[in-house]
Amino acid sequence: MDKKPFIVELNDKFEFQRLLPGEPQTCGMKAGRVYLAPGESCGRHSTNDREELLVFLSGSGKAIIEASDTFDVGFGKVAYIPPQTHHDIQNTGTEPLIYVYCVAPAEK
Amino acid sequence: MDKKPFIVELNDKFEFQRLLPGEPQTCGMKAGRVYLAPGESCGRHSTNDREELLVFLSGSGKAIIEASDTFDVGFGKVAYIPPQTHHDIQNTGTEPLIYVYCVAPAEK
Repeated sequence: MDKKPFIVELNDKFEFQRLLPGEPQTCGMKAGRVYLAPGESCGRHSTNDREELLVFLSGSGKAIIEASDTFDVGFGKVAYIPPQTHHDIQNTGTEPLIYVYCVAPAEK
Repeated sequence: MDKKPFIVELNDKFEFQRLLPGEPQTCGMKAGRVYLAPGESCGRHSTNDREELLVFLSGSGKAIIEASDTFDVGFGKVAYIPPQTHHDIQNTGTEPLIYVYCVAPAEK
């Protein structure tokens, strides 16, 4: 085993905080904490060859999946986004929308 | 793309709540929400061929890694546990220790 366990403390000073940096510290899993002010979005992007879990820590917003699917997200919810899927997260509420994402290479 | 995006609402009525069930709903990623009362632990087990992210939502406790490494965990922290690693999570505080785990197959 060449990977080591580690703990990261969430730091509210950063709008984006890398949590799991990917290789070589992990086998491929990456994670980060995202802070979106009201009205902000993370920007549309694809999961590409990875699948993704989002754990919402505070706030409320929308997950826009591909062209048309929209889901309510926010505190107390988690979201799954499969590979090869364009998505965006928008803060449509009045509080900061904060979440942890975790992406991992999808099995073939 | 045969996998669908989905949202799960965390439900405090369950001590364990499956969030991402793995195949066929996902490509291999699994996730769940764990509730440990003060004094409880999840039980020592191995990550086997998977790597794991823990996102702590409330409470405080210890992560015991293999025989001897111990890390403080709890609200505001995330933990990474590599493959082939025995670990246990213990609630050593006075409040419920609640966390979301996410495991994914490790790349060879």
